[in-house]
Amino acid sequence: MATFVRVYEVGPRDGLQNEAHVVSTGGKLALIRALAASGLSRIEATSFVSPRWIPQLSDAEEVTRALPVCPGLRYAVLVPNAKGLERLCQGLAARSDGPVPVDAAVFVSASETHNRKNVNKSIDDTFRAFEEVIGPARARGLEVRGYVSTVWGCPYEGRVDPAKAVAVAERLLAMGCYQVSLGDTIGVGTPGQTRDIVSRLLARVRPEQLAMHMHDTRGTALANVLVGLEAGIATFDAAIGGLGGCPYAPGASGNLATEDLVYMLHGMGYETGISWAQLISAGELAQQEVGRPLPGKALQAELGAKRRLPSPPSL
Amino acid sequence: MATFVRVYEVGPRDGLQNEAHVVSTGGKLALIRALAASGLSRIEATSFVSPRWIPQLSDAEEVTRALPVCPGLRYAVLVPNAKGLERLCQGLAARSDGPVPVDAAVFVSASETHNRKNVNKSIDDTFRAFEEVIGPARARGLEVRGYVSTVWGCPYEGRVDPAKAVAVAERLLAMGCYQVSLGDTIGVGTPGQTRDIVSRLLARVRPEQLAMHMHDTRGTALANVLVGLEAGIATFDAAIGGLGGCPYAPGASGNLATEDLVYMLHGMGYETGISWAQLISAGELAQQEVGRPLPGKALQAELGAKRRLPSPPSL
Repeated sequence: MATFVRVYEVGPRDGLQNEAHVVSTGGKLALIRALAASGLSRIEATSFVSPRWIPQLSDAEEVTRALPVCPGLRYAVLVPNAKGLERLCQGLAARSDGPVPVDAAVFVSASETHNRKNVNKSIDDTFRAFEEVIGPARARGLEVRGYVSTVWGCPYEGRVDPAKAVAVAERLLAMGCYQVSLGDTIGVGTPGQTRDIVSRLLARVRPEQLAMHMHDTRGTALANVLVGLEAGIATFDAAIGGLGGCPYAPGASGNLATEDLVYMLHGMGYETGISWAQLISAGELAQQEVGRPLPGKALQAELGAKRRLPSPPSL
Repeated sequence: MATFVRVYEVGPRDGLQNEAHVVSTGGKLALIRALAASGLSRIEATSFVSPRWIPQLSDAEEVTRALPVCPGLRYAVLVPNAKGLERLCQGLAARSDGPVPVDAAVFVSASETHNRKNVNKSIDDTFRAFEEVIGPARARGLEVRGYVSTVWGCPYEGRVDPAKAVAVAERLLAMGCYQVSLGDTIGVGTPGQTRDIVSRLLARVRPEQLAMHMHDTRGTALANVLVGLEAGIATFDAAIGGLGGCPYAPGASGNLATEDLVYMLHGMGYETGISWAQLISAGELAQQEVGRPLPGKALQAELGAKRRLPSPPSL
């Protein structure tokens, strides 16, 4: 069993891209600094998807130019196509602060319908576009991470055949991704399904080539993480405060909250390199920046305890 | 492995006793009818704790008098002492609708400080008071269920030695409880700890003598349930909508939400006898009765989907 578990923070990208409130560039950078200060060693900072699709992240070049350099910290940014890669490289070249380690991240769905709705291309055409991203990115010295969306279920097709996720993940690895993150995009996964998906993949690839990216829409994210952990996966994506709830459904929660993940990992004795107190501070800042209470449960429990309020009789 | 898992609904008691808003007797009975209609076979309906302690449940006798009779459904009510047992029996005797199966439930903490703060007695004195409850209740034909609070941690003492929980649970069983429900009162439990606690107990008692009663304060409830399930436990307490969040800390969540539990169990192929659609209806009613959105994630996901709103591009 791994004793170190890598927590891959995706709040500034997967979180903020789904928030109705657009955070300022300064606010994003302040949040990234707070996340880095907590000891997180991987932060997905922004996305070079077209600003027409995701106006929340239209400042991707400015953010990239200003990413703080911290020992041991690598960033990732989403790069869907050759144009996105060009913008990333321009952002990196324009840095006044010197080089910073940034991985490119590409994404594709396990289900055809979600892929078409998300990027207006078939899965095959998406992989063809990746030929203009993955190889060229690596030629420029960038490492590439892959995401597979809708592994546990698709909003259009329902349950997805795990064989499809396995095929897409292997294809990403074969094209040069160093790691593939399996996404439960709509938060429908349950542990039996997770065991099935993960064991199929671990029969074919090494544990360090896999990560899990769970959304906590139905409260099952940590139960699924537990299954992945026990199978040997040691990288889990999460977003500070559970950022990324769909803004059109106020109660619906988004990404697994980083604090909930770290709380469970620390409670189980895993090392993460993360300071709990500073992670909570980053969660407080995230709430201020998006201007709403975030759904992360451990965050709310900590903030409630800080207020030192009385509690009623309890069982 | 069990294929049937018992979901023990505690919303009308453990949920409502912690809600700031006092639900009317009619509202409580409507909620109980909705829960029964969903197929739940165990409902903890109210508490005969002193109304001075818990004014929210001061109508325990009225509720008991009016509990609807449904095939296969057993109720439980909290009975802390001889006086509570007397009130329960009066309520049962005054029923116009004929007899209804009701279990008495007693509670004690694994940690001395929480027990004293909760019931103003030492653990030993609490057990002495149980002599006036458990035997007499059984003599009147009632079965008795026991709760152990603060098994995973105490708000005053911190981590609790699992040996204390084991000792208290065994003492309850020895006194005649048919089942002991292990409570993570403040929602601090993590899976390694759960495995330790459950395996110690299962070395000494039968799986059907145990239940788990998790609060989801830090998002770990279902991960802990998964550990219990895999160890052979087949009864889990939960509250509709995640009722029971501390009213003084608005974001802090309370009991594991029944819908989240049932979602995971059904996803794993377990039978519960519960209709998903009717459970969600009961959750909607619970929100109306307490007058606030409840934290249950699957409930909010279902209600969001019902509104059929567009969702943004997603990964």
